Amino acid sequence: MGRRIVIIGAVALGPKVACRARRLDPDADILLVDRDDLISYGGCGIPYYVSDDVSDLVQLRKTTYDAVRDEAFFRDYKRIRVKTRTEATAIDRRARTVTLRDLDKGVEELAPYDALVLGTGSIPFVPPVQGASLKGVFSVANLHDARTVKALLMSGKIGSAVVVGAGPIGLEMAEGMADLWGVETTVVEMAPQILPQALGPDMARLAQNELERREVRVLTGDRLLGVLDGGSGQVKGVSMEKAGEIPCQLVVFATGVRPNAALARDAGLALGPAGGILVDDRMRTSDPNVYAGGDCVELRNLVSGESVHMPLGSLANRQGRVIGTNATGGHARFMGTVGTFCIKLFGLGVARAGLTEAQARAAGFDPVCGLMGMSDRAHFYPTEKMMFLKLIADRRTRKVLGVEALGENGDAVKARVDAVAALLPHGPTTEDVSNLEVGYSPPYASAMDILNACANTLENILDGRNTPMSAEQFLEQFKKGELTVVDIRAPETAGPGQAKYGERWVSIPLDTLSERWAEVPRDRDAVLLCSSGLRSYESQRILAAKGIELPHVQGGWFLLRGLDPGLLEVEDKA
Amino acid sequence: MGRRIVIIGAVALGPKVACRARRLDPDADILLVDRDDLISYGGCGIPYYVSDDVSDLVQLRKTTYDAVRDEAFFRDYKRIRVKTRTEATAIDRRARTVTLRDLDKGVEELAPYDALVLGTGSIPFVPPVQGASLKGVFSVANLHDARTVKALLMSGKIGSAVVVGAGPIGLEMAEGMADLWGVETTVVEMAPQILPQALGPDMARLAQNELERREVRVLTGDRLLGVLDGGSGQVKGVSMEKAGEIPCQLVVFATGVRPNAALARDAGLALGPAGGILVDDRMRTSDPNVYAGGDCVELRNLVSGESVHMPLGSLANRQGRVIGTNATGGHARFMGTVGTFCIKLFGLGVARAGLTEAQARAAGFDPVCGLMGMSDRAHFYPTEKMMFLKLIADRRTRKVLGVEALGENGDAVKARVDAVAALLPHGPTTEDVSNLEVGYSPPYASAMDILNACANTLENILDGRNTPMSAEQFLEQFKKGELTVVDIRAPETAGPGQAKYGERWVSIPLDTLSERWAEVPRDRDAVLLCSSGLRSYESQRILAAKGIELPHVQGGWFLLRGLDPGLLEVEDKA
Repeated sequence: MGRRIVIIGAVALGPKVACRARRLDPDADILLVDRDDLISYGGCGIPYYVSDDVSDLVQLRKTTYDAVRDEAFFRDYKRIRVKTRTEATAIDRRARTVTLRDLDKGVEELAPYDALVLGTGSIPFVPPVQGASLKGVFSVANLHDARTVKALLMSGKIGSAVVVGAGPIGLEMAEGMADLWGVETTVVEMAPQILPQALGPDMARLAQNELERREVRVLTGDRLLGVLDGGSGQVKGVSMEKAGEIPCQLVVFATGVRPNAALARDAGLALGPAGGILVDDRMRTSDPNVYAGGDCVELRNLVSGESVHMPLGSLANRQGRVIGTNATGGHARFMGTVGTFCIKLFGLGVARAGLTEAQARAAGFDPVCGLMGMSDRAHFYPTEKMMFLKLIADRRTRKVLGVEALGENGDAVKARVDAVAALLPHGPTTEDVSNLEVGYSPPYASAMDILNACANTLENILDGRNTPMSAEQFLEQFKKGELTVVDIRAPETAGPGQAKYGERWVSIPLDTLSERWAEVPRDRDAVLLCSSGLRSYESQRILAAKGIELPHVQGGWFLLRGLDPGLLEVEDKA
Repeated sequence: MGRRIVIIGAVALGPKVACRARRLDPDADILLVDRDDLISYGGCGIPYYVSDDVSDLVQLRKTTYDAVRDEAFFRDYKRIRVKTRTEATAIDRRARTVTLRDLDKGVEELAPYDALVLGTGSIPFVPPVQGASLKGVFSVANLHDARTVKALLMSGKIGSAVVVGAGPIGLEMAEGMADLWGVETTVVEMAPQILPQALGPDMARLAQNELERREVRVLTGDRLLGVLDGGSGQVKGVSMEKAGEIPCQLVVFATGVRPNAALARDAGLALGPAGGILVDDRMRTSDPNVYAGGDCVELRNLVSGESVHMPLGSLANRQGRVIGTNATGGHARFMGTVGTFCIKLFGLGVARAGLTEAQARAAGFDPVCGLMGMSDRAHFYPTEKMMFLKLIADRRTRKVLGVEALGENGDAVKARVDAVAALLPHGPTTEDVSNLEVGYSPPYASAMDILNACANTLENILDGRNTPMSAEQFLEQFKKGELTVVDIRAPETAGPGQAKYGERWVSIPLDTLSERWAEVPRDRDAVLLCSSGLRSYESQRILAAKGIELPHVQGGWFLLRGLDPGLLEVEDKA
């Protein structure tokens, strides 16, 4: 008889382990166990099913060749035994058995294993507030919830909805409900910004503006007090600390997930600081006969070195293959994560990898940011779109710590972030990104790609010759009346600022600055401004040669306009 | 007086050096010299000007903020002196002077330098055939040619054109003439495939099919004998070795460029095997006071270690910044190239980095290829498109040597190639690409991205458990009647093959293979086939357990259909 491999959990990691193990070992006895009756589905597709981009739930369960991944599929295509509606209740590591309980019949059995694989996933975290179990409250953690929510939306009975949590799932669900179904949707978030784990506040603001343009209401920095009962157990709204009562017929909790590590913990396997199962780079737990992967484990963040919880289907799939190799006697490794992430928000693609500025600081680095807006193609190419990109590096070592990007052309955004993500495990410096050899052709990039340009900016900042003021700081101070803008763009471009702000918006075009440098205001706090931050940096160099040190707005007018579209709008006085 | 920096050549590299040097050293005396009167333009944009994607030539000369980069621009914005229509005729390295000749007035002067920068670019190579200097024959190496060619196209007098050379410029020019202007365009190429320096023959065939679908005629493996004179010195066609006479009113030579290194050679600077100036990783020539960069230098290929000529505007720009830093006393490095390249061909994006299989073999590696077609998004996401991706690795070391990709969504194609390009200088193995942490979200990628999947395939091949037959070899042998297909797809999908090829196309669906394995033909050469090569690999594993070894078609039906769209077409017998 062959090697006995028992796999607990059959959503993403488990099936991958099973299939890989089968291909490597034709004689293995492979058993795949899950509590649910629906298995091996693309859970990340749930928001697209809700939005009706994916019309039928079964599509999330199909292979690329249109076979539904059910028990029969695993039996006929893969010779893998599957037990659904079956819970693993205990592991006897000494005897190498796991106790399986049939949830319908209530009977238990012992399954012996040579290798045990834990792919027990994660559990949605729902904050302990009143009303969280009312009818109309969901956490959309599985296909059953997804089906119920979509049926509600299709019924036309949902006029307004509240999503609790502005992480990726919350935002994707908000888009799914607001876009096609026209549901009046509010996203509430305790943190002062959306996507707090993924982006810095500036990039998050740019993304939030897109949501608001598409009429999704976003309330950040506010705390959910409770879900309100409309009588007979049906939700009628939520109560917020600042915003008060928000009426709605549907509440979706997207307040994060926790590793489902109870089975491992009860078996005495080591857990990490984030509550996930600890694994080595072969995905073995503290018991070498027990592997774990997917949402129930912690991974090493390859930039910070910290042990983190990173629940993503893509990581689960890659880990599943590694476990499948190792559990059948092979040798494969999974070194950790650089935290690559991407999301589509209506017409905007958003991507990131590595650490945010805040995460970098928390990990003990001294982060410095370069941020700019630039065309994603050659600026003369007709389909060019604005892209914003931020690079974060450590001041002392110049190691690149993170990248964030967004723009209308999501694949182009992802291209930039993925290139840096590929580098991150190798400890790149800013010089590596300055010279990063991404492909160039006018329909796809500038000769000096935004990645190169942004790394150049960051180098200049680290060298002390580019001294930026962040756009956020500028906006805060300028609105208080504290700053004067020296606009070095062409006079006609500077016009609207001058018209609205008078003396606080001075125009000295760059090509006249060598002559007119003495006109730069010296009696008050002034700041240089151009379109993207490139020319205002250049004007810093010109003024520095005259002994004048002035900050410039990082990211320039493009970023200011993106952060605060109303900055130059003239109020209607009629 | 400040440091004197003299820069010869003012198209891509030269202006970048000048501007960077100015920002770093406000006191430097910077002189930019060019033979032409049009300087600092985006030469890579010429095909898009010809195609009218870019309507006015001046757009290729403008900054992102709409300033034309002429002499006045460099003077007023940058305090850089420019001498156009001026040729550098000699360098006196001992005296540190360069002789400049005014091409209009004929006078010469000596320009002293502390640092000299050679950005002399490249010279179009035109094969020595009769008629190459007839009217109507161009090489489109500068804006003057571009303007003349476009004027001819706009005149409506060009009914048909021949492009000599199927490299990037030739193909972009062909698209530019055929697409908007409706010119009947033929591309002729001596090599047996298009893009011979960039792609393997299979990927090149997929790209060529797109050109042919768009009615560009492509003749590969044929040699130009001469350009034909229609009388009065006007071209009337070309004469080919195999195809005979092709009538046309316009001939564009795109037969490659050679480094323009005469000035350097005459000054005794070291040249490399490809005829370009040799530079170190600070872009210094064999004389440390003389820098060189852009199309006139050779670079180290970071995968093969060889010294290569890689004339690309993006490399020139990045090198320009490095030289600007070093020439003003700083320390910056440019380590070499991994040969990243991308191109848009009508509706297809094509990208590559590293070495092709042939280049890898020539460089002494033992290359092994993984090639597959797969969705560029989650297969359930509505906008998904087919992408083809090839990874090349060395058999012994498992080092990844190259990547090639193409698909309808060019930015997504570029994303995959750029991620590998970023890795290549770090000597990645197939395992690094198997686990490469590119971003995942259903609108942009599969959970197991095509990059990961292709690296997995390559690993399985290297491990000897995936034994492919290349699609090209299959097509060659199958058409000779030598092979029988064992189609393991669903019966209805296998139907058309069975209908057309009868006994030579056997259907054994994968989910029945464990039962029906004995039906696999053993008396003749058989080969397994599925859609993408994933299931046919899986069926190899099932059959291997029964002691049956059969190759499978790499890339599966998707690739066969892409290479030979008529394979299953039934001839019209009416």
